[in-house]
Amino acid sequence: MDFAISDSMTELLGQLRRFVDEHVVPLEPALAGGFFALQPELDEVRALARDRGWWLPQLPKEAGGMGLSVLEHGLVSEVLGRSPLGHYCLGCQAPDAGNMEILLEYGTPAQKAQFLAPLLAGDTRSCFAMTEPEFAGSNPVILGTKARRDGDHWVLDGHKWFTTGADGAAFAVVMAVTEADAAPHERASMILVPTDTPGFERVRNISIMGEPGDGWASHAEVRLTNVRVPVDNLLGAAGKGFAIAQARLGPGRIHHCMRWMGICDRVFDLMTHRAITRDLGGGRGTLAEQGTIAAWIAEAKAQIESTKLLVLRAAWTIDHRGMKAAAEDISLIKFHAADVMLRLVDRAIQVYGAAGITDDHVLSWYYRHERGARIYDGPDEVHKAVVARRIFSRMRKGQA
Amino acid sequence: MDFAISDSMTELLGQLRRFVDEHVVPLEPALAGGFFALQPELDEVRALARDRGWWLPQLPKEAGGMGLSVLEHGLVSEVLGRSPLGHYCLGCQAPDAGNMEILLEYGTPAQKAQFLAPLLAGDTRSCFAMTEPEFAGSNPVILGTKARRDGDHWVLDGHKWFTTGADGAAFAVVMAVTEADAAPHERASMILVPTDTPGFERVRNISIMGEPGDGWASHAEVRLTNVRVPVDNLLGAAGKGFAIAQARLGPGRIHHCMRWMGICDRVFDLMTHRAITRDLGGGRGTLAEQGTIAAWIAEAKAQIESTKLLVLRAAWTIDHRGMKAAAEDISLIKFHAADVMLRLVDRAIQVYGAAGITDDHVLSWYYRHERGARIYDGPDEVHKAVVARRIFSRMRKGQA
Amino acid sequence: MDFAISDSMTELLGQLRRFVDEHVVPLEPALAGGFFALQPELDEVRALARDRGWWLPQLPKEAGGMGLSVLEHGLVSEVLGRSPLGHYCLGCQAPDAGNMEILLEYGTPAQKAQFLAPLLAGDTRSCFAMTEPEFAGSNPVILGTKARRDGDHWVLDGHKWFTTGADGAAFAVVMAVTEADAAPHERASMILVPTDTPGFERVRNISIMGEPGDGWASHAEVRLTNVRVPVDNLLGAAGKGFAIAQARLGPGRIHHCMRWMGICDRVFDLMTHRAITRDLGGGRGTLAEQGTIAAWIAEAKAQIESTKLLVLRAAWTIDHRGMKAAAEDISLIKFHAADVMLRLVDRAIQVYGAAGITDDHVLSWYYRHERGARIYDGPDEVHKAVVARRIFSRMRKGQA
Amino acid sequence: MDFAISDSMTELLGQLRRFVDEHVVPLEPALAGGFFALQPELDEVRALARDRGWWLPQLPKEAGGMGLSVLEHGLVSEVLGRSPLGHYCLGCQAPDAGNMEILLEYGTPAQKAQFLAPLLAGDTRSCFAMTEPEFAGSNPVILGTKARRDGDHWVLDGHKWFTTGADGAAFAVVMAVTEADAAPHERASMILVPTDTPGFERVRNISIMGEPGDGWASHAEVRLTNVRVPVDNLLGAAGKGFAIAQARLGPGRIHHCMRWMGICDRVFDLMTHRAITRDLGGGRGTLAEQGTIAAWIAEAKAQIESTKLLVLRAAWTIDHRGMKAAAEDISLIKFHAADVMLRLVDRAIQVYGAAGITDDHVLSWYYRHERGARIYDGPDEVHKAVVARRIFSRMRKGQA
Repeated sequence: MDFAISDSMTELLGQLRRFVDEHVVPLEPALAGGFFALQPELDEVRALARDRGWWLPQLPKEAGGMGLSVLEHGLVSEVLGRSPLGHYCLGCQAPDAGNMEILLEYGTPAQKAQFLAPLLAGDTRSCFAMTEPEFAGSNPVILGTKARRDGDHWVLDGHKWFTTGADGAAFAVVMAVTEADAAPHERASMILVPTDTPGFERVRNISIMGEPGDGWASHAEVRLTNVRVPVDNLLGAAGKGFAIAQARLGPGRIHHCMRWMGICDRVFDLMTHRAITRDLGGGRGTLAEQGTIAAWIAEAKAQIESTKLLVLRAAWTIDHRGMKAAAEDISLIKFHAADVMLRLVDRAIQVYGAAGITDDHVLSWYYRHERGARIYDGPDEVHKAVVARRIFSRMRKGQA
Repeated sequence: MDFAISDSMTELLGQLRRFVDEHVVPLEPALAGGFFALQPELDEVRALARDRGWWLPQLPKEAGGMGLSVLEHGLVSEVLGRSPLGHYCLGCQAPDAGNMEILLEYGTPAQKAQFLAPLLAGDTRSCFAMTEPEFAGSNPVILGTKARRDGDHWVLDGHKWFTTGADGAAFAVVMAVTEADAAPHERASMILVPTDTPGFERVRNISIMGEPGDGWASHAEVRLTNVRVPVDNLLGAAGKGFAIAQARLGPGRIHHCMRWMGICDRVFDLMTHRAITRDLGGGRGTLAEQGTIAAWIAEAKAQIESTKLLVLRAAWTIDHRGMKAAAEDISLIKFHAADVMLRLVDRAIQVYGAAGITDDHVLSWYYRHERGARIYDGPDEVHKAVVARRIFSRMRKGQA
Repeated sequence: MDFAISDSMTELLGQLRRFVDEHVVPLEPALAGGFFALQPELDEVRALARDRGWWLPQLPKEAGGMGLSVLEHGLVSEVLGRSPLGHYCLGCQAPDAGNMEILLEYGTPAQKAQFLAPLLAGDTRSCFAMTEPEFAGSNPVILGTKARRDGDHWVLDGHKWFTTGADGAAFAVVMAVTEADAAPHERASMILVPTDTPGFERVRNISIMGEPGDGWASHAEVRLTNVRVPVDNLLGAAGKGFAIAQARLGPGRIHHCMRWMGICDRVFDLMTHRAITRDLGGGRGTLAEQGTIAAWIAEAKAQIESTKLLVLRAAWTIDHRGMKAAAEDISLIKFHAADVMLRLVDRAIQVYGAAGITDDHVLSWYYRHERGARIYDGPDEVHKAVVARRIFSRMRKGQA
Repeated sequence: MDFAISDSMTELLGQLRRFVDEHVVPLEPALAGGFFALQPELDEVRALARDRGWWLPQLPKEAGGMGLSVLEHGLVSEVLGRSPLGHYCLGCQAPDAGNMEILLEYGTPAQKAQFLAPLLAGDTRSCFAMTEPEFAGSNPVILGTKARRDGDHWVLDGHKWFTTGADGAAFAVVMAVTEADAAPHERASMILVPTDTPGFERVRNISIMGEPGDGWASHAEVRLTNVRVPVDNLLGAAGKGFAIAQARLGPGRIHHCMRWMGICDRVFDLMTHRAITRDLGGGRGTLAEQGTIAAWIAEAKAQIESTKLLVLRAAWTIDHRGMKAAAEDISLIKFHAADVMLRLVDRAIQVYGAAGITDDHVLSWYYRHERGARIYDGPDEVHKAVVARRIFSRMRKGQA
């Protein structure tokens, strides 16, 4: 295992860090006014980044990306994660990043031309419609949405929610059952559905933690009623929807973890800064001189540093041994990094006191918007069960 | 110690429970539309409650209240706390309840006529302006707001925040330094300031956890610039502001704890209900059959039941031995009950999965709006330090 | 619920507290030399206690006990629990206390004369042989030990462990399957077996946490090989062993919890004393001035006080509504009180530093000897599952 | 950062793992009979190891060691740590390893001949006498032990405890104040004292967690009364005792952390094995099918894997940037790894149930003998304060 960072990478990370501080962080307060209102300014920052060659860090150069290894992208992602807007500014935000990946891998030339090209260019956004309110997300093979073949068309009917960024998206990748009689993992297919197709209804942006949000910064409830799209809109083979989703979720999870580590860095810096600057009055010095606060700082450091290394190991393993070899590490960091991040955010709020629950600081944003980290892409409990099952299985085979 | 509940009290609690379920809980979703918009419906529920004799449960009968003991009010408060709107519907919501108490205790007849009477009647609301952004709330004797005597007037200048319910309040109780040369605890006074006095400026409703809110459901930043009020608006003696604030905060804290126990009840019921009804699909049964979830339910039960008893003991002690004798218990429950509540809310969200972070359930409301519980009225760290100091002192005197 | 303590009880508790401090605590260091070696001194303390009328606090006056309510015994037990030797000095130590109870309840006159009378007198000790190494203690209906009827005798064969105090005991209450074909809960019976019966072999005192111990302070592995006892040695009806064991374990669990609260008191006092007396040198003051230590003291206080109240409520419920009504509370305190105690002991050791792991203080004793509290009489996980099942069942019936 | 393991290292680690399993683990049960009784068998295992070239893995080849990097030694130490006897069998056990290091670095040729040579050969053992019962170990510059110059001799008087392995040691490295008037950090010196010097009295092997132990497996209280040694027995310069101790403690701490990671591996394997083999009876399957147990396994894996990487990073940093650059990481892992280990041991015991507290398994040994890990070489609280101070200082300088 070699986590060495090249000189050019070190330089890039430093430049990106300054870029985020100077151009991205200052936009955060305006996020309260809504995504669409902020989009022109975000587009300017995107343009600045692209001028420097910073665009699509997660993709190979052939696809217009930066050609980084997963490990390198992890380091970039830590820096971008310092702001809720960081990834958007380089075009590597969820769910578009994941959709780009599966279109690159499984898309036909026509699909790439129609759906992928404008996405890569940053001209459109997309969404991914898998989760359904009626069924437990922890068991993704059970879906109520169906697509039936009718001549040259697929006709979709169903109900989705947590379709991130549907508001304003050009198209959705919809998971729907097409092979009802197949084995559970082979029933669903992925179908590309332009959002202006009749019957594709964005019911609402779900109000989450007090905010329905808008645009990219929203999560929609969607109803599909007799939605007709050409048969050519099938992405990958019929019945392979679940397999492609898994292939998509693997990197998706590690991208989240990398981003969370950036959040940890930001929050840790804020907490530390608050501790050394907040005077308690009456000659009692600053918060930094309170033993409890100091202990939190040290504990957070140990948690963050050790967790970052595990995230990097997962990235390194993908680079050198493939996604499958990294599967267990990815499950480990999915629940572990989320836990480390959320505990840290909670403690940072406590250090800030009343100011910490206001929206004058980014802490409250993370507290609300990242609570889902322990739920989306598989709740903690599912990942723990998966890891344990693997460990038990190895030991039963005498490989522990 | 006698926690026995009389038959009439048992009956009252049952009736209140049904009242909250039938009349208050259904209004919760509309809270997202703002307090002022909801006020007409809330007033109807208030009228219903008053018809049944349920009004001002925290006050003696002479003041128009229900004449309950602190212990009994605690039990009522547990029931009201099952909804964020419960206390408002019986007129015992913060910060008005606390302001009523100090006006009753320290107000002149003229002050009572002008400020207290309409407050008791539910015709006005009030606010309490103590906390300042520039100074640590954990050291409340340090204030920047000053009131100087100018003939028959006080002239106030200062900057406050977290002035709950200032939006729409008729008057504020303002903490201001009037005796700058006195000992630290004897510098401040309380002054009654009608909110329409020139120079009293509500700068903004602070956006907290994503919502600026409005009306009673908001927390304002307030600036006082050359605000002139008659000298008779001094509440209690000059220099006694801190002492009165302490007298106000003691019951205030236990009222919060009682309310939190009601929140725990509601959240526990929701979590349990979700566990037995959420099917995992594929023949795996419900969440209730998952060992981890079952363990959370049991741990929550132990936490809630033990904490409730400590809250009741504090209430009983106030009733029978006075506020001072209950001081340590109040500090204990202030941090302990808040911790129990917030851990519970967090786990309940995890049990709900994606639905738990939406505003379709009240969990997200509590998660956001009660994070402050570990901060307001003294952060955990301050209460822990206070308790420890008392314990160390007792042991040094050989009284442990 | 009435936790009022009578004046006479308050006086008794004060006297007992002084008694424990003066006569029992000083014997603790000698415990390292073994129980048998210490027994003469313990007998002197027992005599002192009996002179004052303090003997068998858990039993009714008719049986020679003190005639206390369960609540009162709880308070006495808290005081006795301040020393590992406290309960022994008043004759209410496990497992004898439990054996006395079932002999009183289910014993024939002959059994009472032979086994119970000398036990009540403090002339003998007894043991309870249920747990078996081959089967999970969490499922107590599965037993390998069998007793077959052979004329006027029972003939027992089996293997037991964790038979507390078998070393030096006059007799064992042995759980053995007599009705192999009955329903699982009705297969076992209790049989009284004098330890000098041929074939009753104490294989070893199990070395636990570094000490095999001896006498009352030991836990034996026992093998029964062709052990013959008269049929009259059956305690209660055939097949009722499990039911009687449950009846025995209910009070047994609450007795443990009461004792643990006494341990918490002792440990809390030690920790507090250490904090105010341990100087850090170099003008840094004592440990009490360290914020982290102070926070631990306050957190411990909240934990102990709230947990004690839940233990007392369980005791009060037994007194006024019977054992069955208290079942859920007993399960709650079984895991909750053990957790509170063990976390406290761990923190107290940390406060003591290197001294805390030495046997110069009682902390190390509790750390080792009470780790089992989360295991014996039902591991945490089983009690949590039981409580959750009850709660789910109530909610399904709409009784929550 | 490059954690790559060479092929030869991978092979060595596999061989060592088998060696530990075959030759070291089987000796563990006999440890209950005392160290001296077991020493002949341990010497045989040492001989076996030396035959294979495995001796002093922590030392350079010139000193007769294996010439490993700190990172490589870390990996070896993880394997040796799987047994409490592992390090002893390769001659790298504390406190001898540390004493070897300082003798190599600071010893005169005569000192090396007299003290170091037989130590390296495994013919003698040594001890390190720094900690004193009267002074807080967290402030090591305060010492009561004094050495005064009397002609060609040092005359030592003082009182030490936790002098590990003094029982049977050939000599002690004693920290004593020689320069009482110097700055606090420059008062103490290290003096080599053969244990048979008149006045060097081993008062007792301190009973720790129930066991006084003996030989290497003991921690002595030592009194020095008028102990005379030649002036040439000064190790390093006068007044440099504290500096040398720090130099010794740095690697000492990382060696402990490496060993703890080995303990984690062993305990994790035991816990996992128990989970898949312990049947609950009645068709309920094994412990592995209990959700709570499975979650513990997964959480432990995440904790262990992330912590190991942080330990390796500290080792790598020492190798490539020196001890000073690794100081913060060493403090981080000192408290973090100890915490991870002790929580794991506690949970493993819970998985084992009653068997877990017996000495039939190594868990109880670790539970008792490693509780000190959060105390020795600096308690958690001190390391956290040190780390926080560094972080605050960096941020104040704008280097965060």
